[in-house]
Amino acid sequence: MQPLNTQSPEQLRQLIRAGQFNGPTAGLAAGFAQANLLIVKQAQAYDFLLFCQRNPQACPLLDVTDVGSAISQYAAPGADIRSDLPLYRLYRHGELCEEVSDISAHWQDDMVAFLIGCSFSFESALLANDVPVRHIEDNHNVPMYISNRQCRPAGQFSGPMVVSMRPMPADKVVRATQVTSRFPGVHGAPVHIGDPAALGITDINKPDFGCASHIREGEVPVFWACGVTPQAVAMHSKPELAITHAPGHMLICDLRNEQLGVF
Amino acid sequence: MQPLNTQSPEQLRQLIRAGQFNGPTAGLAAGFAQANLLIVKQAQAYDFLLFCQRNPQACPLLDVTDVGSAISQYAAPGADIRSDLPLYRLYRHGELCEEVSDISAHWQDDMVAFLIGCSFSFESALLANDVPVRHIEDNHNVPMYISNRQCRPAGQFSGPMVVSMRPMPADKVVRATQVTSRFPGVHGAPVHIGDPAALGITDINKPDFGCASHIREGEVPVFWACGVTPQAVAMHSKPELAITHAPGHMLICDLRNEQLGVF
Repeated sequence: MQPLNTQSPEQLRQLIRAGQFNGPTAGLAAGFAQANLLIVKQAQAYDFLLFCQRNPQACPLLDVTDVGSAISQYAAPGADIRSDLPLYRLYRHGELCEEVSDISAHWQDDMVAFLIGCSFSFESALLANDVPVRHIEDNHNVPMYISNRQCRPAGQFSGPMVVSMRPMPADKVVRATQVTSRFPGVHGAPVHIGDPAALGITDINKPDFGCASHIREGEVPVFWACGVTPQAVAMHSKPELAITHAPGHMLICDLRNEQLGVF
Repeated sequence: MQPLNTQSPEQLRQLIRAGQFNGPTAGLAAGFAQANLLIVKQAQAYDFLLFCQRNPQACPLLDVTDVGSAISQYAAPGADIRSDLPLYRLYRHGELCEEVSDISAHWQDDMVAFLIGCSFSFESALLANDVPVRHIEDNHNVPMYISNRQCRPAGQFSGPMVVSMRPMPADKVVRATQVTSRFPGVHGAPVHIGDPAALGITDINKPDFGCASHIREGEVPVFWACGVTPQAVAMHSKPELAITHAPGHMLICDLRNEQLGVF
């Protein structure tokens, strides 16, 4: 088999669909966007779509399927949302109840799939600009915190913004802000630079999700809105059934990261 | 009375609400965004919201009210959509049937108001960058054309992208592209530069809406996605009742144009 890291998005999705790859997708299909997945039923879809419209930093939509269609038309044309991600999570009434590698058996005619931009895209841009990304250097999951900022509510969906944190030397902060501002489709500019207390974070070494990143002497913590926000908000409303990707097991899209740049 | 052009957005909305001003809003509240309005019933709202998500250049959403609420929470906090625009149009089954200065009597509990970004904001930015705007110089309505580009359909809504055209000297085209790229919330970058035929426009002197702009020797026509698109698309689906602003009679928002800049 051709090495994984030289395969196209479509080739990778075919391998995943055939059950020949089921691992995390970080580092695959360099230059292409990957997407977070959230599937809800039509009864929740309007409120969720409106929630995303009102909270574009936390919930930047790359694609929304037609009701009942599991085919991505725009972010990954031809991709079958039911089989083309390596691992899924099923939530019933807000509780995680199963991890599966294919959701065809669970798909229903009134479901809508939301594909949400992922920070992998802007991290590539940071690295290309010589801004270090600590959790990649140290090979652990990004630290995430439930902040004191409330999202704009929409119908049944409301809750706090979850933020991710990347520490960096003070002389990289301006460039990091510039670089990520170009990519509103994958969370965009930071939401806060500096003191964690301003976001209601009492102990930066105890993230709510992921693993703590070591902040070196002289480094500044920089915070971005995080794609865990929509998932947390959706689960909080305890929908009868919701399906997401398993963390790190994303949909590999045909959209290039650079196509998401607004200039 | 204080001159109109020195009044704040809230003061102007109060005047309009009280019936003391009913003219076009161009030039008022300099520096503040103005919004196109489209009101549909809940039954159409999901498809229309999805249409906007899929076509952000033509349909950049500034705000969407909660179902049944005529109050703008985010773009113009406190504004009453039913009374705070100078003139409205009522469409029944896609046909214009009435122009009124207040729609309180027509508001229904299942209505949703969509506020859509307007090119006034990016035209201010063009002028501030010394890019001429011909239809402002010549004091006529911007020329608009039904292009051969199809919008991405969403449920009952589909149709061609309507584009507006601004001619300018060739040496202004790069700056015009840069300046408007900053403002995806008000149509963003041009969709085409140069030959009208590439957009299926056979006679640039015969716009489908508005008035022809004179293109001087050596000037290049530059085209942007136009906010008439969502209105045309919505009417094409012949909803039982839809309400819009009358052309040029916009909602004056509290959002500053600069707040819509992505960097």
